[in-house]
Amino acid sequence: MQTVSENRCFGGVQGVYSHSSDACSCDMTFGLFLPDAAREGEVPVLWYLSGLTCTHENAMTKAGAQAWAAEEGLALVFPDTSPRGEGVANDEAYDLGQGAGFYVNATQAPWAPHFRMWDYVADELPALLGKEFAVDLDRQSITGHSMGGHGALTLAMSLPERYRSVSAFAPIANPTASDWGRKQLAAYLGVDESTWAAHDSTLLMAEKGFDGPVLIDQGSDDQFLDLLKPEALSQAMAAKRQEGTFRMQKGYDHSYFFVSTFMEDHIAFHANALYS
Amino acid sequence: MQTVSENRCFGGVQGVYSHSSDACSCDMTFGLFLPDAAREGEVPVLWYLSGLTCTHENAMTKAGAQAWAAEEGLALVFPDTSPRGEGVANDEAYDLGQGAGFYVNATQAPWAPHFRMWDYVADELPALLGKEFAVDLDRQSITGHSMGGHGALTLAMSLPERYRSVSAFAPIANPTASDWGRKQLAAYLGVDESTWAAHDSTLLMAEKGFDGPVLIDQGSDDQFLDLLKPEALSQAMAAKRQEGTFRMQKGYDHSYFFVSTFMEDHIAFHANALYS
Repeated sequence: MQTVSENRCFGGVQGVYSHSSDACSCDMTFGLFLPDAAREGEVPVLWYLSGLTCTHENAMTKAGAQAWAAEEGLALVFPDTSPRGEGVANDEAYDLGQGAGFYVNATQAPWAPHFRMWDYVADELPALLGKEFAVDLDRQSITGHSMGGHGALTLAMSLPERYRSVSAFAPIANPTASDWGRKQLAAYLGVDESTWAAHDSTLLMAEKGFDGPVLIDQGSDDQFLDLLKPEALSQAMAAKRQEGTFRMQKGYDHSYFFVSTFMEDHIAFHANALYS
Repeated sequence: MQTVSENRCFGGVQGVYSHSSDACSCDMTFGLFLPDAAREGEVPVLWYLSGLTCTHENAMTKAGAQAWAAEEGLALVFPDTSPRGEGVANDEAYDLGQGAGFYVNATQAPWAPHFRMWDYVADELPALLGKEFAVDLDRQSITGHSMGGHGALTLAMSLPERYRSVSAFAPIANPTASDWGRKQLAAYLGVDESTWAAHDSTLLMAEKGFDGPVLIDQGSDDQFLDLLKPEALSQAMAAKRQEGTFRMQKGYDHSYFFVSTFMEDHIAFHANALYS
């Protein structure tokens, strides 16, 4: 593992690190904020998964999350959104290939050799963090924005007892029924739609739900409402009697101005679960 | 004036606007955050001047200032750092020309026709804001980072009674004695160094000081300490018996991770002056 940069930030350290990834068969870069509290012992971990076109860097510089994580004594992990590099398959579209991993393990050519973001986020990166940093892997929670909200929700529901709480900002909530989903799931997983269900938050919510609290924020003026389909997830949460909160935030759009506005609430929500 | 974008943010609106500037003889773009309180009446204004290579956008997306401005009911103005465009002179160096206006009125070729950032920030943009938005120009304060800290301090000391308080993050504090200053002041103002003194915070502090509170934050691990020369300003403030605070923040560098860490303090400092 190499240190790309370390900046002092809210009493802690905002680091960027790269490492050779077995899951993705390429070098991967991630951001990690460690609060001052990590100098005295292991701290709980909040994962933040980013959206389409993002790298590890977007949320790290624009979400304003470190202020609240420092206050609560939480580590923040900012993984990249896909494998990258010259030998890695790509597509001209912004919503497929590099920057658009969708947090799945691809089974189809040309994606299968590198696009294994599920394994990377679920297994490889947590193991690396536990080995290299003062983080307590028994206390993890997860959040994300847009495609990253999709990733957070699907990982949380598929890995019981891994995360104590899950939240999302404007998640892609029903990808098997959306152009943000059908195209990518077909490309990565193939045309047999039965393989897609494990990567649809609405379907997972209906089937199994999440054994802990859920918080969803969605802007009412989001320019991608038709693609995100928040009503499908909201309906499924209520039908499942899922412990949780779904908030429609009047006037907010899809940008980081929306995400940063409600970041304090999300981090307080996760801290409450992680310290209880 | 044209609206480039408006995003709902912390209960208010983060806007980006462009207009034809008489001072700079080109189109100029600026960011303006208006808190929710501006819907009910005029709100005080905090100016944020950015550093080398920045546009109106950097602080707007990375400084985390809107959270605190919303809480305090302050407007935030984010001007660009220079004139821009195809007809505007430029230089290959990152620290001269576009993105490096240094908040002066250039008198020398090829800069004089457009590089009039002093007049733009001191006169033209405030007048436009007063005409178009619910801002109270009788209550203004100013801050900035690096080159923008230089701009904030020199404007504040040169325009008595304009600003109620001034602060800076890692300002270029003594440009007449620094490679961040001598090169640019010579290019924009000419080789007669007597014209430079009006644009050196340390010299202005020694000569006149500021009739209000001053707050300076500087990171002890700033990679540009030799160019910023904080010790010169700190000495001048103490010698002048200037009302103010100079803080050396251990371990912080020059980045926005530093700026965002202390933004809450700066906004509370200005709010205290603006509401007293």
